[in-house]
Amino acid sequence: MTAPPLRLDDNQRRDWLRLSRSEGIGPRNFRVMLTRHGSAAAALAALPELARRTGRPIKAADPAAVDREIDAATRLGVRYVALGEADYPLALSVIDSVPPLIAVRGHVAALAGPAAAVVGSRNASAAGLTLAERLARALGTAGYAVVSGLARGIDAQAHRSSLDTGTVAVLAGGHDRIYPPEHGKLLAGLLERGAAISEMPMGWVPRGRDFPGRNRLVSGLSLGVVVVEAAMRSGSLITARFALEQGREVFAVPGSPLDPRAAGTNDLIRQGATLCADPEHVLSVLAPLREGPRPHLDDRAPQTASLWDEAEVFSAPPPRPDRLLPLEAVMPTAPRASQPHETVLALLGSAPVSVDDLVRASELTARDVQVALLELELSGRIERHGAQAVSLAPGRPV
Amino acid sequence: MTAPPLRLDDNQRRDWLRLSRSEGIGPRNFRVMLTRHGSAAAALAALPELARRTGRPIKAADPAAVDREIDAATRLGVRYVALGEADYPLALSVIDSVPPLIAVRGHVAALAGPAAAVVGSRNASAAGLTLAERLARALGTAGYAVVSGLARGIDAQAHRSSLDTGTVAVLAGGHDRIYPPEHGKLLAGLLERGAAISEMPMGWVPRGRDFPGRNRLVSGLSLGVVVVEAAMRSGSLITARFALEQGREVFAVPGSPLDPRAAGTNDLIRQGATLCADPEHVLSVLAPLREGPRPHLDDRAPQTASLWDEAEVFSAPPPRPDRLLPLEAVMPTAPRASQPHETVLALLGSAPVSVDDLVRASELTARDVQVALLELELSGRIERHGAQAVSLAPGRPV
Repeated sequence: MTAPPLRLDDNQRRDWLRLSRSEGIGPRNFRVMLTRHGSAAAALAALPELARRTGRPIKAADPAAVDREIDAATRLGVRYVALGEADYPLALSVIDSVPPLIAVRGHVAALAGPAAAVVGSRNASAAGLTLAERLARALGTAGYAVVSGLARGIDAQAHRSSLDTGTVAVLAGGHDRIYPPEHGKLLAGLLERGAAISEMPMGWVPRGRDFPGRNRLVSGLSLGVVVVEAAMRSGSLITARFALEQGREVFAVPGSPLDPRAAGTNDLIRQGATLCADPEHVLSVLAPLREGPRPHLDDRAPQTASLWDEAEVFSAPPPRPDRLLPLEAVMPTAPRASQPHETVLALLGSAPVSVDDLVRASELTARDVQVALLELELSGRIERHGAQAVSLAPGRPV
Repeated sequence: MTAPPLRLDDNQRRDWLRLSRSEGIGPRNFRVMLTRHGSAAAALAALPELARRTGRPIKAADPAAVDREIDAATRLGVRYVALGEADYPLALSVIDSVPPLIAVRGHVAALAGPAAAVVGSRNASAAGLTLAERLARALGTAGYAVVSGLARGIDAQAHRSSLDTGTVAVLAGGHDRIYPPEHGKLLAGLLERGAAISEMPMGWVPRGRDFPGRNRLVSGLSLGVVVVEAAMRSGSLITARFALEQGREVFAVPGSPLDPRAAGTNDLIRQGATLCADPEHVLSVLAPLREGPRPHLDDRAPQTASLWDEAEVFSAPPPRPDRLLPLEAVMPTAPRASQPHETVLALLGSAPVSVDDLVRASELTARDVQVALLELELSGRIERHGAQAVSLAPGRPV
């Protein structure tokens, strides 16, 4: 628990980056390999054997491409912060699927204090923009970094209104592929006191499926998420769902039932989000969380401990068996060890079934099923029926 | 419990009306006297002695005035229905301070089925009017009588939108003193299938302090209350608070925090009211309550039993001691037996105190304190600080 923070040297950092960019190695597998092999270098060396044994497309990233990424990052002033290092944001470090490295541009200090996310629809109303501004100003004044996704509408307004106090943009693509392109100037402004972060490689053009991953970082950095305006099925609701899974507070600004931009936020409130009609409604809930024992984060202490323990792994070559994480994800031994979303998809038909039944039938964890459903929902392959039932989207091929 | 419904003859009904119109005899004292003396006639005969003994202004109503009221009511087609009679609305019969008699104009059958209230601001927005219409239509179509207060704005819209299915207007004054006066035509329209009720005498011009009493009947008639638009401190919030005290469902339609007409409804939602963005949000909650055992109403079964027992009192002259209700209200034995609102007022100063402390200090029941605070709040003599603290209103004489 009190292990000293990890400090990677340049070679180690390069190995971490290369392992994290390798095909078939997501955040979860990264942790499994690192824990198992003791260092990123050793894990990289083990990949060919792993690929042979599993017959899966696991392949170390091209070293030249990694060097090119590091060069491009350096030119933009982007540095990589590794999970376990002192600068890695504490709130983010305890989420599931935590990025092993984040690429940070701007002031890494902006990630050190308490943060709150303000998100919402791209197609925002004037009222929504006013409310986002009030919220972001109040949060900034109270000492929170305002986190958002640099999108048009509410996100941009949240950043704009907290330029002076520090705001954090989470990108869905690489730092050199700003989306939307017209927000380059806003980004430059926020970098003066704040920061932008990404888990994606330099040069990565964000696609639709990258945004949920970005959203999990928006909530993961934050003690709470305020959704200002959101239509049904919008990305902000995915951020809210991640926040819930991560044990963060969820707030939603209500609106008239006649306004489609309030449909998502009103629905969040019906599902238990705290109604926010005034910044004080957020501040009063977050205040006790920002100091002291951080009750929400401490709930996840066992996982935190295993993360921080990775710092020791480097100097302790034979990892103790009880530190090993479950290996199914990289070592398939049965058909059900295919990707969770494939397992879930195969179980779905046109008739709605409950998520609980899916969990039982899939033999996956509830969380894996939820994440798979998020992916499938975003790619339009499934349809939700209320909060707890899903079916295949009509007219989609299985 | 299975006692046959009460049936009053004309003389008995006249005695009930006279007792209920007597000075110092509110709904609570009416019940005490009736239970104690076995009939309204006997209770009337006992009033002079009671006034002497207590030194309080208790005085039987002038028989000629009662006859004039009955004549005026008859001319308008108004009939009096007594608590315990078959036509008395079941939901209303179980509230505290239940009116011993209600004056009904129109179709008494409109009071027989399940009812739901739709209330809101007089100064309604176009959106609010649209939502009130949708709600009232959906409730009417689903078989609920729509109850409201015949006020301008949301109330009037609720009545207008349920003329065909049956709507009930609760008046704050006498049936011959319609307020606001321009709603005479709306009233005539709703009487064709619905009803109007009042507990106030014919000829009574409604004053500000009569509206909370009216509001308790709006909620008391209903399985649930939907507040469509309401500013802070508006009468609709008092209806919602009565609904809560009476164990009825409370729904509120959300709105933009920038719209003052949504401040009250958003606040209700923060306090636990169900967010209503669609009529289905009301119908799904009320459906299980309208049939079968009526769980909310049955929670109060002991009180219900004592009410129905009054039907027996008439044929059983010496009431059993265990049927006696507490007599402090009519028989003061200590200074604290002054009116609860006087007791409460005397305890208040300019510094906010908690309602719990007030209950302790006053030695009144929590309910009596709450009702006293409602009265004092409406008359502008106290100020609330959040849900649980009150003080004298600034600049008001004690």
